[in-house]
Amino acid sequence: MTALEKYFPFWKQLSDSQQQRLSQAAVERRAAKGTLLHNGTAGCEGLLIVQSGRLRAFLFSDEGREITLYRLFERDICLFSASCMIRSIQFDISVEAEEDTVFYQISAQIYAQLMKESAAVANYTNELTAARFSDVMWLLDQVLYKRLDSRLAAFLLEENHLNNGEGKLTLTHEEIARHLGSAREVITRMLKYFQAEGLVTLSRGTVLISDIKGLAALAEDSLK
Amino acid sequence: MTALEKYFPFWKQLSDSQQQRLSQAAVERRAAKGTLLHNGTAGCEGLLIVQSGRLRAFLFSDEGREITLYRLFERDICLFSASCMIRSIQFDISVEAEEDTVFYQISAQIYAQLMKESAAVANYTNELTAARFSDVMWLLDQVLYKRLDSRLAAFLLEENHLNNGEGKLTLTHEEIARHLGSAREVITRMLKYFQAEGLVTLSRGTVLISDIKGLAALAEDSLK
Repeated sequence: MTALEKYFPFWKQLSDSQQQRLSQAAVERRAAKGTLLHNGTAGCEGLLIVQSGRLRAFLFSDEGREITLYRLFERDICLFSASCMIRSIQFDISVEAEEDTVFYQISAQIYAQLMKESAAVANYTNELTAARFSDVMWLLDQVLYKRLDSRLAAFLLEENHLNNGEGKLTLTHEEIARHLGSAREVITRMLKYFQAEGLVTLSRGTVLISDIKGLAALAEDSLK
Repeated sequence: MTALEKYFPFWKQLSDSQQQRLSQAAVERRAAKGTLLHNGTAGCEGLLIVQSGRLRAFLFSDEGREITLYRLFERDICLFSASCMIRSIQFDISVEAEEDTVFYQISAQIYAQLMKESAAVANYTNELTAARFSDVMWLLDQVLYKRLDSRLAAFLLEENHLNNGEGKLTLTHEEIARHLGSAREVITRMLKYFQAEGLVTLSRGTVLISDIKGLAALAEDSLK
């Protein structure tokens, strides 16, 4: 299964035996949209490499609220579903398939052994950790310093981009609130304000983008 | 300088030459309380190993607000002052000496070379990244899901603990606001509420803790 070669930049630095072990550790799997692949405290499912589709990593509060941390697209590698490999990871992230997704699942035990043997594997893994760390630092900055109207505008634009720019988003207010770590009532009020400003048109379960430029200007805006 | 041995658990896995290079790359330095040691975008000062004193890592918003991310104590290693070593670190953290601090400063170039050569060094560095990532995830959870009164109570208890539990904190409302990523007026209002509840006694530039148990109960409390 040399298909793995294109996902791991360190591939050529591995010995034949290491390449073989990594290949044997990988299983191709499919998950339907909405499937929960990793659930915080529970389990260590291994590394997930997205072949097609989309994964969403999110944080779950004790009180059942959530916030989207980042998305993983084709060729991205989900490390935190294998968080048992790294002792100092002291947090729980949940991962779900946001679209129908095809992925490789790689045993955490075998990958951890390769990390021990190969500095190239270990350094690449560190880059993965740092990349997700960067995503979360961006989010922290947003949450701390951006107004909710800016964050909502940025979110709608991002969703539109993920949907090929069709301008029509099939999302309930509840779902949007979950992505942004907010409450449904707060999002509903803000969306109605957006509608009054001519930025969006609302109907049951959909948000139609009416003014992309206006949303973009608002997304740029930050707190005083 | 085998003094480094006690800071790096991978020491014995290094060759003599690697140990020598690491030792030669380390310089002992001192910084007075308040010294800015690393300033976001600027520079790559190298790894900082705290021998005594205390470092504070914080995030600076475009608008000049800050929030404390984590503290580094004796034996802790500051990685992000050497963030040029890890390509995927796409965020800016500032680091200051929060007390008079003695530390080793280790060249990022030499440490990065050792990471390339040694899986043990690379994996240890990954643990450092993951430990700080965990600190930030905890903070994100606090900011998202804890009320400010809980966070302020937890902060006052933590400060008291750092000051040997004397119960008297020399901190302005402005400083507290900076630690918590809030505004001075908001903190002043909350402290006055705490005072009315008999939790603290305020005077110019100091907060006297009057009811540790009450603060602890409040710190435990989380948003609905």
